[in-house]
Amino acid sequence: MTTTEAPEATLANLAGGYGPTLAMHESAKIASVHAIPYAIPYRKPLNFASGSISVADNVVVQVRTSDGVVGTAEALPRPYTYGETQSSIVAAIEDVFAPSIVGLGLFAREQVRARVDRTVGNPSAKAAIDMAIWDAIGRTLDVSVHKLLGGYTDSLTVSHMLGFAAPAQVAAEAVQLYERYGIQSFKIKVGRRPIQDDIAVCRAVREAVGSQAEIYIDGNRGWSAAEASQAISRLGDVGLARVEELCPADDVLSRRWLVQQCSVPFVADESVPTPADVTREILSGAATAVNIKVARTGFSDSLRVANLAEGLGIPSNIGNQIDGHITTACSLAFGASQRVTARHSAELSNYLDLEDSLLTGPLSIEGGEMRVVDGSGLGFEIDESKLEHYRIDNA
Amino acid sequence: MTTTEAPEATLANLAGGYGPTLAMHESAKIASVHAIPYAIPYRKPLNFASGSISVADNVVVQVRTSDGVVGTAEALPRPYTYGETQSSIVAAIEDVFAPSIVGLGLFAREQVRARVDRTVGNPSAKAAIDMAIWDAIGRTLDVSVHKLLGGYTDSLTVSHMLGFAAPAQVAAEAVQLYERYGIQSFKIKVGRRPIQDDIAVCRAVREAVGSQAEIYIDGNRGWSAAEASQAISRLGDVGLARVEELCPADDVLSRRWLVQQCSVPFVADESVPTPADVTREILSGAATAVNIKVARTGFSDSLRVANLAEGLGIPSNIGNQIDGHITTACSLAFGASQRVTARHSAELSNYLDLEDSLLTGPLSIEGGEMRVVDGSGLGFEIDESKLEHYRIDNA
Repeated sequence: MTTTEAPEATLANLAGGYGPTLAMHESAKIASVHAIPYAIPYRKPLNFASGSISVADNVVVQVRTSDGVVGTAEALPRPYTYGETQSSIVAAIEDVFAPSIVGLGLFAREQVRARVDRTVGNPSAKAAIDMAIWDAIGRTLDVSVHKLLGGYTDSLTVSHMLGFAAPAQVAAEAVQLYERYGIQSFKIKVGRRPIQDDIAVCRAVREAVGSQAEIYIDGNRGWSAAEASQAISRLGDVGLARVEELCPADDVLSRRWLVQQCSVPFVADESVPTPADVTREILSGAATAVNIKVARTGFSDSLRVANLAEGLGIPSNIGNQIDGHITTACSLAFGASQRVTARHSAELSNYLDLEDSLLTGPLSIEGGEMRVVDGSGLGFEIDESKLEHYRIDNA
Repeated sequence: MTTTEAPEATLANLAGGYGPTLAMHESAKIASVHAIPYAIPYRKPLNFASGSISVADNVVVQVRTSDGVVGTAEALPRPYTYGETQSSIVAAIEDVFAPSIVGLGLFAREQVRARVDRTVGNPSAKAAIDMAIWDAIGRTLDVSVHKLLGGYTDSLTVSHMLGFAAPAQVAAEAVQLYERYGIQSFKIKVGRRPIQDDIAVCRAVREAVGSQAEIYIDGNRGWSAAEASQAISRLGDVGLARVEELCPADDVLSRRWLVQQCSVPFVADESVPTPADVTREILSGAATAVNIKVARTGFSDSLRVANLAEGLGIPSNIGNQIDGHITTACSLAFGASQRVTARHSAELSNYLDLEDSLLTGPLSIEGGEMRVVDGSGLGFEIDESKLEHYRIDNA
């Protein structure tokens, strides 16, 4: 039953006997796939339990169709989470994935997915290809990807991620984000030892932002289950909305013990990069909610994760892979398209710390909300002179 | 966070600061939703353990957009499975669903779903609305729904459903279907007492169609678990590919006992009309595979079930709700769009027994395969004079 050929739109009318003119753009094919590494510095580094980032060393992925339409997305190397580097992403796309999908129909998304899945791992590279194809589809049809995905609502409540720093400094950043953008949801990076340092930060932020704001924490596996349990208990008066990856999922029984006693959703993130991982971790009691990151599951598999989480009856949240501008637009398009993800605050604001953007227009956060960038495809346009300036693969 | 307003495409450019011209069709709205009951006789009645059908008393559902585009699907009343009748479907659509979704954006599929889900039950009515909206979206964008859904492949292997009759008669029908259409997969309706009657039918079909053909059985809850266990054992030499709903899912422990000992996939069908039911039944050991029927889950929720089943690691098959021509085209469009459903034979041929069709062109099965009806939307056109002739709601 499994075909290895791309669906041939030109064959379609032979069978049904129907006469409607076949839409010309249905015959669009993937003509080329390119990966362009670039580097844009952050104004300040983001520090967290599993790593630190001071430069966005990402990879722009462009899918060109036989009609000359270009779809764009980007891949974010996160070696401490997925094992990919900027160079490995470029190599995987140019050497492995591009040759296996060039010539396929642009609309044969699921056929593309089947082809790239013959290669293990490389989630960020695969995700960027998937999103670039969706962008090209939207631009070909002159409709937004957000609408194609389901168009549930047109904006999301923004949550901002606060990295390691002294309590007063983190609190001041939160206040600044509220005053400037109206943001009232904050994810605080924790997982340091002694736990008192992080607890002090959480208290300082709560005092600074008031009782109405949403606060939750992300340990990036930095604590033991026992430390996490102590921290949750001491943070009772801070009022956490949810907690994320406080201890390693590989500490299987301790993690289960921790999750069982936790009175707020325990979010799995780096432990659930695939739908099968979601099933395993949720059924084993390692989490009671999951993060969705388009940077690792693109649109096609983010939909799989959202549908799986919904079917299992657990919440799913839009997480942030320290997204640049392009991926932020992608996270927003996806998150707002589905009811289950639009219910919760979404981590969308990390792009604010970047020194520059590859896009021709700004992203904007107003009143703590971010509106979907509408228009064809993902709605943004790449500033070619900026890309030329920041790319690191030519002289 | 949950909005009750439809996404307003006209507001979209206010925020992002982007300049691309907003696609005109993004502003298309749902202008009206109509339900037209009709009746077309079957050449011969189909008999099975939970009921019998001699007339297709279905409901055509048409969604008209503000651009004048019309999307079409149909709802199939199956009172013995979902409690809906032809009249209840018309009433639910005209009185409840239409008023709640008219005025929403055509592309706000997930918003539409949220609105109709405020009313419990009525799966066939909801499914038809969802599919009619997808058809209207495809026609608006001039692309096939099959491509929008993922476009995995362009054809499916057809499986034919054989109803109750004498062994020689059922075997002759199978042979005729092979000779005429090349069909080599057969689902035999079982669930009668004594079980010997059904076993005789299965043996007769296997003898007639040879060892290469695929045979599986569907009990529609007609047997007890003990009877089903005996039947499976006696059918060992017939070689079943899978078995379906052999005993009631509400016989919880007996069903689990039966499924545990079953060496082929045990398919849940009427016991899993929703994603939550899939999770419950699979986790409780009541089945090891699920049927997907667009007639009850439309395209949006069929995708949810397919993604859920894939994430849970179980097979999903395209089942047949005794589909008419319109729903057959829908089942085909969906089933061929996803890798997980395209892997297995799909029940698509029941339309062959209808005396007439509402479509302007034929559906066709060749070499046991059915090709997706390509073209805009679902690719078919309604013959207005036929609809006028068969509709039962005017003089």
